[in-house]
Parts: sequence; structure tokens; C-alpha cells
Amino acid sequence: MSVSLGETADLRLKASHGLAISLRRGERLRIENLFGTQVVDTWLLAGDDPFEHSSMDHTRSVNSNIFLEKEMVVASSLRRPMARLVEDTSPGRHDTLLCPCNAAIYRELRCEGYHRSCTDNFHEALGAVGITLPFTPASLNLFMNVPVAADGSVERVAPASRPGDAVVLQAEMDVTVVLSACPQDVTPINGTERTPRDIGLAIRPARGAPL
Amino acid sequence: MSVSLGETADLRLKASHGLAISLRRGERLRIENLFGTQVVDTWLLAGDDPFEHSSMDHTRSVNSNIFLEKEMVVASSLRRPMARLVEDTSPGRHDTLLCPCNAAIYRELRCEGYHRSCTDNFHEALGAVGITLPFTPASLNLFMNVPVAADGSVERVAPASRPGDAVVLQAEMDVTVVLSACPQDVTPINGTERTPRDIGLAIRPARGAPL
Repeated sequence: MSVSLGETADLRLKASHGLAISLRRGERLRIENLFGTQVVDTWLLAGDDPFEHSSMDHTRSVNSNIFLEKEMVVASSLRRPMARLVEDTSPGRHDTLLCPCNAAIYRELRCEGYHRSCTDNFHEALGAVGITLPFTPASLNLFMNVPVAADGSVERVAPASRPGDAVVLQAEMDVTVVLSACPQDVTPINGTERTPRDIGLAIRPARGAPL
Repeated sequence: MSVSLGETADLRLKASHGLAISLRRGERLRIENLFGTQVVDTWLLAGDDPFEHSSMDHTRSVNSNIFLEKEMVVASSLRRPMARLVEDTSPGRHDTLLCPCNAAIYRELRCEGYHRSCTDNFHEALGAVGITLPFTPASLNLFMNVPVAADGSVERVAPASRPGDAVVLQAEMDVTVVLSACPQDVTPINGTERTPRDIGLAIRPARGAPL
């Protein structure tokens, strides 16, 4: 599914599925964690060149931080600001470190048959808007709770967000945003109930209607 | 410059330049920090498919750690082990977080004219062995000293390694290793003298000659 430029509709991102949304510079996307427990893997591609993609290694370098917090930017593979986190009612510290879930992880977790994944959702959502990429950029993992210890080790724990917590990303250039409501239902990364949930979305113009 | 499979030559990686080296599974590459101060940006590509590349987000996920330490693996974009850090005489904790240096960084640092970069070295070294990739994977930054504070902020400080410290990567599949002796001479990431240096290399077969 794709969403046209400039719409103001409120949308749902279906549990375990992906979606590509076009935003013009200045437009804002509100991503609401309806149940508080759902991780949203997020990517941005430049509107005029999908090979310029959100890059977590550049984002950490630009922000000099391993988390994404309010007022920080998501930087592109060319070190340009693609979006800014302008609002965040969650406890924050969204993960930039871990890969999107993928077929190999579900095989390791002994899932039988096909299991949806954020990696597949990324390519499926892009395919729906006619974009093919031969690689999967690292994802920005909104609401994902990955504490880092002093020895560098990481944990994967349930989101600290509450139902209704939301972030707002403001486009700093024309972009395609790709979202995946993470299908992970084996580990507690999407909450101890291990149940993928829908996410609420709202697109608002650059100026005018309040979010 | 490329190096053929199975050679045992001792080599130099020239300061500020890149190099692609083919290794067969089991072969080992020793990377010696001759002066102690030099960062080496490192990538691996699968020997039979350069689109399967070393992935720092998968590597952190597989190791559950943000640093690369002895006995940890470098994982591919398909979550396969590409190489293992089998020896490390340095203080360790090699950086997996920050992007390879690139043209945009040197513009920010007000360098005039062309400045060599690890990103350009990656593509230049691959071009020399007939490989073109339309993107730049995140790099493994050997010897790079990037402490992470509890608030997630990162620092960029001089390497803690000493002259002669070395790491040994053992290929876990047939791979092309791409190395860049980082050309950064503005910040102290390559030491407070801000002078890029040569790196010593040695390739050894899977069994037999000691490193």
C-alpha cells in the first residue's frame, strides 16, 4: 500500500505488515503505539533517489549518540538530514543498533514454514510503490528497548512505552518512509504477550493542522 | 591492488589507501598496527556474491554486543559468519558504530579540494578487483576507539593500541576483505599526531605456518 503526497488521513499500519508513505519536506508523520508494546522498524529513502537511504551508522555519527532522541536527525547515506524526531511522548532511546528481523533469525528461533519479517516487509512495501533495492539498510527501530551495558553487551527487552505514546518524524527532504510493524512473536521485543499489534499513523502538512 | 588466493606474502597497506584481498575459508589475515595509532576500516564480501556483505547491525545482533572482541564473528547481511576475530593483542573493543569517513565529513571539517576517505577507498579497492557495489555497507573499524557513555553519547578518541598490536581475522567462508587505512588527519581518531600511517598485513594458510 502507498499513500499519496499531502494526504491528511489517519491510517493503521497493520500488525506484522509494512507500508511505504511519501512525505514532502516539512510534512510530519505521527506514529502512535496504540498498545504500547509494538516496535516499528523504520527506513527513509530520498524521494528522488532510493539509493540514498537512511543510514544508522551515519545517524549515530551525526548525532554522536547511539540512540535516537527528540530533536535528533535521521541521516542519509550521504550524511544529509532526512527527518527529525520532533515529538516523542515515549520514554525514548529508540534503538539504532540491531538489524531488522529476517528469515535467518526465525530459522534460528525454530519457526516452521514462512514467518513474516521486517526485512521482507521493507522490500514488499517498496515493491508496492515500484521501488526495488538490492540490499536492506539498517533500520531505525522505534520503541525498541535495547539497553547497552558498560561491557558493550546488549539486551532485548519489552518496550517501555505506554499505550498512546507517539513519535512525530518531520521530513527534512522529500522522502519515502517505510514502516514495518515488527512481526516478532517469539522473543519479548514486542511485549511479554508476544503479540504483534497495529500501529496508528497520521500524516499532517508542514503547516496548519496540529498533530 | 588485489592479492591472489593462498599467498603467504607479507604486505603493507599504504597509509590513507585501500586494498581488496581474497581469502578462502580457513585462511587468516593478520593486521598489524605498526605505529599503534592507525584505524583500519574493514569490510567483507562473500566470494560468490558481493551483495552479501559484512553487516554491523547483524554482527551486533549475532554477538549481542556493540563491540567486536576476540572470538566474536563478523556476520553477513544474511546472518552468516564471514570471519572470526581469532587473535587480538590490542586493548580491543573495535568500533562497529560509526560510519566510514566520507566526502561529506571532510567538507564539514572544512577541508579544501579532494580528501581521500575510507568510503572512496572501499569502492576504489573493489573497482581494482572488478566489483562495483551501489552502496557502502557500514564498516568494522578496527583499532578505532569510540567509548559509549551511559546516556548513549559517543566520543572519538585516539586508539588505545600500541605499536605492533595486531588482530587476526579467520575467514569463515570464501571472502573478499576490503581494508582502508583511514585517511582522517583532522580529528585525533588516528592518534594525536593526526598522521595516517601504513598497516602491516600477513596472509597465512588455514593450517601450517604459524602467524
